[in-house]
Amino acid sequence: MAMAASQVAYSSPAYLKNLDAYWRAANYISVGQLYLKDNPLLKEPVKPSDLKAKPIGHWGTISGQNFIYAHLNRVINKYDLNMFYIEGPGHGGQVMVSNSYLDGSYTEIYPDVTQDIEGMKRLFKQFSFPGGVASHAAPETPGSIHEGGELGYSLSHGTGAILDQPDLMAAVVVGDGEAETGPLATSWLSNRFINPVTDGAVLPILLLNGFKISNPTMLSRMSDEQLALYFEGLGWRPYFVEGEDPEEMHRDMAYVMDQMIEQIQAIQSHARKTGDTARPAWPMLVFRAPKGWTGPKEWDEKPVEHSFRAHQIPVPIDQDHMEHLDVLINWMKSYRPEELFDENGRLKPEIARITPKGNKRMAMNPATNAGFHIKDLDLPDFRDYALDNKEHGKQMAQDMTVLGTYLKDVILKNETKRNFRIFGPDETMSNRLAPVFEATKRQWVEKIKEPNDEFLAPDGRVIDSQLSEHQAEGFLEGYVLTGRHGFFASYEAFLRVVDSMITQHFKWLRKAAEQKWRADIPSLNVVATSTVFQQDHNGYTHQDPGILGHLADKKPEFIREYLPADANTLLAVFDKILNDRGKINLIVSSKHPRPQWFTVEEAEELADRGLKIIDWASTDEDGDPDIVIAACGTEPLLESLAAVSILHEKLPKLKIRMINVLDILKLRSPALDPRGLSDEAFDAYFTKDKPVVFAFHGYEGLIKDLFFDRANHNLHVHGYRENGDITTPFDMRVMNQMDRFDLVKEVVSSLPDTARHAALISEMDSMLQKHHAYIREEGTDLPEIENWQWQAIK
Amino acid sequence: MAMAASQVAYSSPAYLKNLDAYWRAANYISVGQLYLKDNPLLKEPVKPSDLKAKPIGHWGTISGQNFIYAHLNRVINKYDLNMFYIEGPGHGGQVMVSNSYLDGSYTEIYPDVTQDIEGMKRLFKQFSFPGGVASHAAPETPGSIHEGGELGYSLSHGTGAILDQPDLMAAVVVGDGEAETGPLATSWLSNRFINPVTDGAVLPILLLNGFKISNPTMLSRMSDEQLALYFEGLGWRPYFVEGEDPEEMHRDMAYVMDQMIEQIQAIQSHARKTGDTARPAWPMLVFRAPKGWTGPKEWDEKPVEHSFRAHQIPVPIDQDHMEHLDVLINWMKSYRPEELFDENGRLKPEIARITPKGNKRMAMNPATNAGFHIKDLDLPDFRDYALDNKEHGKQMAQDMTVLGTYLKDVILKNETKRNFRIFGPDETMSNRLAPVFEATKRQWVEKIKEPNDEFLAPDGRVIDSQLSEHQAEGFLEGYVLTGRHGFFASYEAFLRVVDSMITQHFKWLRKAAEQKWRADIPSLNVVATSTVFQQDHNGYTHQDPGILGHLADKKPEFIREYLPADANTLLAVFDKILNDRGKINLIVSSKHPRPQWFTVEEAEELADRGLKIIDWASTDEDGDPDIVIAACGTEPLLESLAAVSILHEKLPKLKIRMINVLDILKLRSPALDPRGLSDEAFDAYFTKDKPVVFAFHGYEGLIKDLFFDRANHNLHVHGYRENGDITTPFDMRVMNQMDRFDLVKEVVSSLPDTARHAALISEMDSMLQKHHAYIREEGTDLPEIENWQWQAIK
Repeated sequence: MAMAASQVAYSSPAYLKNLDAYWRAANYISVGQLYLKDNPLLKEPVKPSDLKAKPIGHWGTISGQNFIYAHLNRVINKYDLNMFYIEGPGHGGQVMVSNSYLDGSYTEIYPDVTQDIEGMKRLFKQFSFPGGVASHAAPETPGSIHEGGELGYSLSHGTGAILDQPDLMAAVVVGDGEAETGPLATSWLSNRFINPVTDGAVLPILLLNGFKISNPTMLSRMSDEQLALYFEGLGWRPYFVEGEDPEEMHRDMAYVMDQMIEQIQAIQSHARKTGDTARPAWPMLVFRAPKGWTGPKEWDEKPVEHSFRAHQIPVPIDQDHMEHLDVLINWMKSYRPEELFDENGRLKPEIARITPKGNKRMAMNPATNAGFHIKDLDLPDFRDYALDNKEHGKQMAQDMTVLGTYLKDVILKNETKRNFRIFGPDETMSNRLAPVFEATKRQWVEKIKEPNDEFLAPDGRVIDSQLSEHQAEGFLEGYVLTGRHGFFASYEAFLRVVDSMITQHFKWLRKAAEQKWRADIPSLNVVATSTVFQQDHNGYTHQDPGILGHLADKKPEFIREYLPADANTLLAVFDKILNDRGKINLIVSSKHPRPQWFTVEEAEELADRGLKIIDWASTDEDGDPDIVIAACGTEPLLESLAAVSILHEKLPKLKIRMINVLDILKLRSPALDPRGLSDEAFDAYFTKDKPVVFAFHGYEGLIKDLFFDRANHNLHVHGYRENGDITTPFDMRVMNQMDRFDLVKEVVSSLPDTARHAALISEMDSMLQKHHAYIREEGTDLPEIENWQWQAIK
Repeated sequence: MAMAASQVAYSSPAYLKNLDAYWRAANYISVGQLYLKDNPLLKEPVKPSDLKAKPIGHWGTISGQNFIYAHLNRVINKYDLNMFYIEGPGHGGQVMVSNSYLDGSYTEIYPDVTQDIEGMKRLFKQFSFPGGVASHAAPETPGSIHEGGELGYSLSHGTGAILDQPDLMAAVVVGDGEAETGPLATSWLSNRFINPVTDGAVLPILLLNGFKISNPTMLSRMSDEQLALYFEGLGWRPYFVEGEDPEEMHRDMAYVMDQMIEQIQAIQSHARKTGDTARPAWPMLVFRAPKGWTGPKEWDEKPVEHSFRAHQIPVPIDQDHMEHLDVLINWMKSYRPEELFDENGRLKPEIARITPKGNKRMAMNPATNAGFHIKDLDLPDFRDYALDNKEHGKQMAQDMTVLGTYLKDVILKNETKRNFRIFGPDETMSNRLAPVFEATKRQWVEKIKEPNDEFLAPDGRVIDSQLSEHQAEGFLEGYVLTGRHGFFASYEAFLRVVDSMITQHFKWLRKAAEQKWRADIPSLNVVATSTVFQQDHNGYTHQDPGILGHLADKKPEFIREYLPADANTLLAVFDKILNDRGKINLIVSSKHPRPQWFTVEEAEELADRGLKIIDWASTDEDGDPDIVIAACGTEPLLESLAAVSILHEKLPKLKIRMINVLDILKLRSPALDPRGLSDEAFDAYFTKDKPVVFAFHGYEGLIKDLFFDRANHNLHVHGYRENGDITTPFDMRVMNQMDRFDLVKEVVSSLPDTARHAALISEMDSMLQKHHAYIREEGTDLPEIENWQWQAIK
């Protein structure tokens, strides 16, 4: 049906006229979605019931984006590109909906929405309507991997997506509002990470329409000269297209698009022939067209086009406000629908001819629905990396370093698949993953100056050379959204910098899971290390375990929170998550030297069940404990076991049950979380009424919340009490009363009162005093605490 | 003692030699703090006990910053500047400590740390030591308003600080790691908001030492030419100083500093004479000096200076590792301490002479300890703006618009004080504060193009023309940290973008409150509007009330969370917070038309007590309710009252107690929060055991957490259940079962079972079905729901 590319005169007036018709069709459809729920081609006189009662949506960005989309289609055809679209501007969901409707992909995915009058009517009605589709690019939008709504991540997503996909091109439209956010502003530095040989390309298109919700935009008020300085300084090669006359704009856009695509191809071809990976000046486009282009010029004697007033619904016409219906009709008819659609409401064939076909359509690009194309990682047996902990607690090791030895082999085993990456904000070494650098390097497409630099190369599985949690998180999101695997490791406290990004990704997963035509993508794995109880070097500003509560607020089906307390459990967790799908896995891990507790069998059981009675630390052989001590997290377990030692020595008859909780959300009631322990199982662990002293890594409210729906409210939580400083490792715990001495005091206080108990409390107080005095003088912990070791109690 | 400025040859070789000596002294003191706890001048042979056991801290950034600090001192003297210092690089706390020690301010604030050997010993030992001082600029650091630790906010803070302080200059050192973060990258746009007539100046100093924790930095690998393009594009005038030879560097730095200061003065003088507020090209400095400058060149055959290896402790020497003590001694002696300090360890007078004196010292700049200089706002009587709600619920109004009428007069009454500002990310209009634009404009120091632009002017009380929550929050922080008042209004969901910033500000407040020499600064007021239950226009991506739980995790003394359910309560809350001190006040407010409930007297009582039994909606005259219905938030109260109406009609004998909670954290146990209701008071409101159906604006876990420590666990919370979409306003509530019908069902289910109750549940289910069918067709809520009005029940 389509002519061979070589035979088509893609810049001929005839072709561009056809492209203009296509653009008008997209604009017509986009306006219709805002206002109409029936009579889509306006063939009948418009009745109130044809109009929506409360039109909701946005207009300002639409026609500019439709124009860009049309011209991307053109170069896809001309150059046979493998390209997809990222819609950075927050609102303007009609763009991807309209264009995928016109090229037929929408109907293939949603067969009800046919390419005829009836289908167009459905398309119009459903938009931004109860039970319908969102007003921004969303999981239900064909071709989208990037949700509008929150702004700032389009270029990070685009970059993450094209890593290791050398033929893929991400056309990333950046709105001029979005361009003012921090994450977007720093994401221009992404070009430092794109290897022209092994990765694909991003083509950023900065859409300067001049206005935001009710303000001008800052970049639009920069002259072309200033913008050129800015982008050249950042290492891009900026191109410019500007205007509002459609004919001129089509001509200019076609010319510039060709230049940019040819430049990208020349860059890639040169690099791939010569192996020269010096950072190229990739092209980017500054596209200036009016906000609300082609829409109503003014309303109520104020300008609409070229103004913030075009942002949402530009003219207030609805079922109850028909007085100015002519404005809407004239606007829609200005696109000359009779030239665009046949009698049945189908796009005329001469226009339809110029859309890309099959998977070349951006809405059908396989990268944007990658769940069906995932290659599982080839994982080594994690047991081969496990420590021998037959003598519980004898060995000291750094969990993250042990993990590093395993990850090194994950990298090596998947070297040819090129589908695994590690992201971080300059913290891979600090987070003790050094062993991975025996297998790979940091990808850094800049000059490398050894020996002052270390572990850098143009191609590598680690990307951590930008100090930006936003970029690390955004790259990983783009990478997993397009079907690959990896994790983002961060200082625990600074994960909070991307709280909102993680929320948006969760929302994506959740809404995508409702779309039958999408398959689950690999889980987003987030490692929180350098944790709240390990900030003795950095102090209070670096302490915040609140990511646990933040994610626990979300829909439980999509969230896991693992707190492995040693290296073997960390390995067992990684074995579960690396090929996992459709979730956000938070792993909170220690990086400092800590005692190692669990055999590999115990570690597996913990990872599988989520929690476990630690028999070698429990003394309730009769199954009827006097006290339950539960620990969740590395330092909580360490201190709990130290408390058990003291209790065993001082109160040998006390029947203690010691529980380690690894998968904290397993404690949630099944009424809220299908994975939650049943009430019977919960009571079997925690009893119905015995005191539970719970040592927790995070804020205490989360544990109270989890216990609220259970029978046993005899709960005594010791978590992070928002106390911190630069001090000794043990003192960090003392400051929060999450230390062995305070835990013993809590246990004793929760038991029936005896003289022996009072004496023990007083003994613990003395130990605390001794501790305080010692650290103020020596700056280190008491040797008996620093060197404490677990002694088998049975 | 000091010569008159005019008589000093500030660029003479003698002066610069003296400046170099000062710099060496600062470096000496800075290294000493890392390693030593005794023998500070190395007069005795170094024993193990002179060294710290575990040196903790950072070296990489220190000497470069000390150099900059010395040269800032020089221009303060030369030009009689009112300048303070913001230390952007995260770690390097010695800089501000060392320099304030040398100029005497440290000893004035901490008299124990004397300017002699004994004091120097204390200074050294306390640094990054248990019970001592932080390893970054912190509240205990003289002259700091900006905490290191989390990165990215230095320039936003500096800009917020100099607003409305035309004589003040903020020297903002931006680290090259920090420069890679999103918030910092977009904060270069701050120059669009600085009015050269009415505001002061920021002097950004980009410190390119080349490396971060273990990576090179991205901006340092840009050529001077690229950096010049970048900063010129952004509208700055970049200057460059680069090198490592101290003599040349002093000469170059003095020359360039003079140029920059004179340029700032020329800009200000021109603008203030002529009134020309066109945006000037403010100077900024790119300063390149090696990471670890003047420290050990290498260690273990690898480069240290000029490398990431200089980041923390560059050479591992401590009590237990004395083998290479000579490296440390040679390093410290390379500064020639004998030329710098007299026998008693005091800085020699010829060097001390060149430090600024009194409040000209950056560590003593009054702007950095503004709590003593606050001018209270002159507030109008909020009662004058209150609505007449004698007929509860009859009137509809938009709470934020009513607030706007009050704020308009706040602005007018404080016009000459110039100490009140409103910040936001392009949302002031969307958040319905339009009335403020009758009194002021948006400050925007760029060209203004009316009528396409609106409410812009070079000088105005609103700054919201950048779409960046980071900038809005950062500006407000800088503004209140320097003693002024204001608030930041944001879409509720997107406050999460600055979760971590707000945490850091909280930590600042908390640690500052421990410093007797600091007085409380004005509270940080954060308004969350366009809330989770009002996103019918925007959908699920815009829904997230989690800021409530996020802040509730923090120390309660510093956090307030107000959820006024109508305009009068919102006014009453604002009256409390605008002149408040030392806290973070979160105000969650509706902006949409909603029924108005409370008389001004009721509103005052709610604001004062935090909660209130709503007698006109309660039927438990005997004080013994069958059911307690509590509501916190606008839509929860609306739906609860609608549920009460239904219950009253259907079950007229049911004794209902209706409670509105405005100050949600008042419910916390006094064991955790000194403000919390006593158990007796709590039980008097909520009873010990009657069912409590609690309709809540946020996630339910927070309410369970608050009730956990109370007697009454017969709690049935209906909060935000993480369900959202573009749908009707009422359907948003239905999706989360926070609607009247589901609340009635919950009430009935919590009561003893009767046939009447089962029938009522079934009736509610029918209503829900009717609702669903209607909205799918009409796109609007059932008229009987949309038009529902409260009918007095007594």
